[in-house]
Amino acid sequence: MQKKNGLKAHFEWRGKIETGIKSKITTMEELALAYTPGVAEPCLAIKDDIKLSYELTGRWNTVAVVTDGTAVLGLGDIGPEASMPVMEGKCVLFKEFGGVDAVPICIRSKDVDEIVRTVELIAGSFGGINLEDIKAPKCIEIEERLKASLDIPVFHDDQHGTAIVVLAALINALKVAGKDRNVRIVISGAGAAGTATAKLLHNDGFADITVCSSKGIVTEGELAKFGKNPGPGSLSAALSGADVFIGLSAPGIVTGEMVASMNEKAVVLALANPVPEIMPDEAKAAGAFIIGTGRSDFPNQINNVLAFPGVFRGAFDVRASEINETMKLRAAYALSGLVCDNELEPDYIIPNVFDKRVAGTVAQAVAESARKTEVNRI
Amino acid sequence: MQKKNGLKAHFEWRGKIETGIKSKITTMEELALAYTPGVAEPCLAIKDDIKLSYELTGRWNTVAVVTDGTAVLGLGDIGPEASMPVMEGKCVLFKEFGGVDAVPICIRSKDVDEIVRTVELIAGSFGGINLEDIKAPKCIEIEERLKASLDIPVFHDDQHGTAIVVLAALINALKVAGKDRNVRIVISGAGAAGTATAKLLHNDGFADITVCSSKGIVTEGELAKFGKNPGPGSLSAALSGADVFIGLSAPGIVTGEMVASMNEKAVVLALANPVPEIMPDEAKAAGAFIIGTGRSDFPNQINNVLAFPGVFRGAFDVRASEINETMKLRAAYALSGLVCDNELEPDYIIPNVFDKRVAGTVAQAVAESARKTEVNRI
Repeated sequence: MQKKNGLKAHFEWRGKIETGIKSKITTMEELALAYTPGVAEPCLAIKDDIKLSYELTGRWNTVAVVTDGTAVLGLGDIGPEASMPVMEGKCVLFKEFGGVDAVPICIRSKDVDEIVRTVELIAGSFGGINLEDIKAPKCIEIEERLKASLDIPVFHDDQHGTAIVVLAALINALKVAGKDRNVRIVISGAGAAGTATAKLLHNDGFADITVCSSKGIVTEGELAKFGKNPGPGSLSAALSGADVFIGLSAPGIVTGEMVASMNEKAVVLALANPVPEIMPDEAKAAGAFIIGTGRSDFPNQINNVLAFPGVFRGAFDVRASEINETMKLRAAYALSGLVCDNELEPDYIIPNVFDKRVAGTVAQAVAESARKTEVNRI
Repeated sequence: MQKKNGLKAHFEWRGKIETGIKSKITTMEELALAYTPGVAEPCLAIKDDIKLSYELTGRWNTVAVVTDGTAVLGLGDIGPEASMPVMEGKCVLFKEFGGVDAVPICIRSKDVDEIVRTVELIAGSFGGINLEDIKAPKCIEIEERLKASLDIPVFHDDQHGTAIVVLAALINALKVAGKDRNVRIVISGAGAAGTATAKLLHNDGFADITVCSSKGIVTEGELAKFGKNPGPGSLSAALSGADVFIGLSAPGIVTGEMVASMNEKAVVLALANPVPEIMPDEAKAAGAFIIGTGRSDFPNQINNVLAFPGVFRGAFDVRASEINETMKLRAAYALSGLVCDNELEPDYIIPNVFDKRVAGTVAQAVAESARKTEVNRI
């Protein structure tokens, strides 16, 4: 039913965003100010000092939401045009939650070099780049190359937005469960989100992280170095005795038995969307103490919208040239801090997505962190 | 003074456009419709039929305003970032006058291949491409290549927008002067605007067009074939006995003596901006009968904003895959027709830019012409 409604609504909207006008042009005087001859001086000022493009145009507040359409939601490689409804939605969320102007750019190429070059060539119109729904592992290479070549923030939300919100939820879940950083964590999913989450948790001091791909425990490479590397084995074997399960993988792959084999007061964040790795009811029946999903129809919704609008708002506010690891950690802590200790309970470890404090709090933390870590300013 | 005000206003605006939201996301239900899971069905529908991107996203109404910043207004090659104030202004005009959503895309390359490829790769997010302020002659090659490779309208406003408005003004000027298509026309300027104007006038049946570049009368190539090709000579020589002067060139290059040497009831459209080829007062003193400029502070303002918003509005309304020569001619006639015969006078040959009828009338003419000429639909 909701599916059908979504299609109907999109036919009615025919586009979820439009051009908003900040400078009216309804009289000859206004035309002369906002267009010719009024534009001449601002143009020449920017020509002399490109940084003035942040003072005289909307660049300071505008992010390009860039995709090639190869890994859209749970839908896979559907192509650039078909990814537009998602990108437009993302733009609405940027504006609605973070006051950030956003433009969807869907690229008709799957080639890393072409995608990188295209973004580099259009970057002068934007203050930041949000990469979205690009297939792993090339999304990681694209992000790294753009971070190296551009002087504006580049952020792959599927990686870092997810990692920030998962860490925020985990911090609070462990408070409720009365556990510390020595917990044994199992992450299911070795793609973009799983990798970035493992890294961020590791950077925050979690020392026992086992990552599983669809082939079982990852025993080689970077992902094998975030924990005690138990050696080859199945997800089921990894989960036995674990304190935390973080699912960034596929629907239904975790059974009640697997949850039952976990340590007491188990934390189960089953984030595959829309169908999680295990349904909340089943996880609860198997003894899970805290359960989170990506869905709005269960408690503890782990949703990227809790992070990216505030992250860019904060980065833009201080004109940070990048969004670094420390800024992401501060964002996660700020987000977790919005649920006070006396409010924390198994069904409330993360703020609601419509909590009005979220974006501003995350933004402030990101901006302060940028100042403290002496991030280059644009 | 106006210069200073323009700079001040741009510092206050910090961007003349912003992201407007058509689909509110303020409740969980709205989030579920406009983002996940509501976007899934529209995405899959477009995947199956890319044309549905015109029904389910804003693509049908969105134009990319593309420049490389090499020929911005009268300012020259100021670079992509510095051209943003102009491109944002253009986007405001598109929305305000034509209801067309517009996105500025400033490309950090002057290479024709790179510019063409970049536009091709991002075209899936847009319903049309408006090229702007790209240096001649490469602007012509870029437009031709993009027209050949893309299935959406590509329009270089500096060429065709100018040509449409000049033709509209000329049609009415000749009515007022009581002259016919046998007039002798001299165009000063062999760049993008001059070339396109000469072509459109020629296509409309004017048979005696002499084009002058900064080196004098053009005697070779396409531009020498639109008239009687008087052979080598100066602009001054060309103007002697001419009925119409169209300046798309440089400030102050026409003298009173040159105007005085023209035929009686001379039409002088001196469109160099902000300083015309000859100032209206001087042209009048030298005997010009009808005078037009690009400026708002004199009668008969020949301004592209009379054309491009309506041209794209019309093309978008019928989902035309191109904006062809006939559509441009119909646009010019529709525009000229807005000044009724009984209203026509030497100081009123073209509608005011704020005449509310303009965009709709031009749009209707373009749309009808697309239907009649059986232009491919997207």
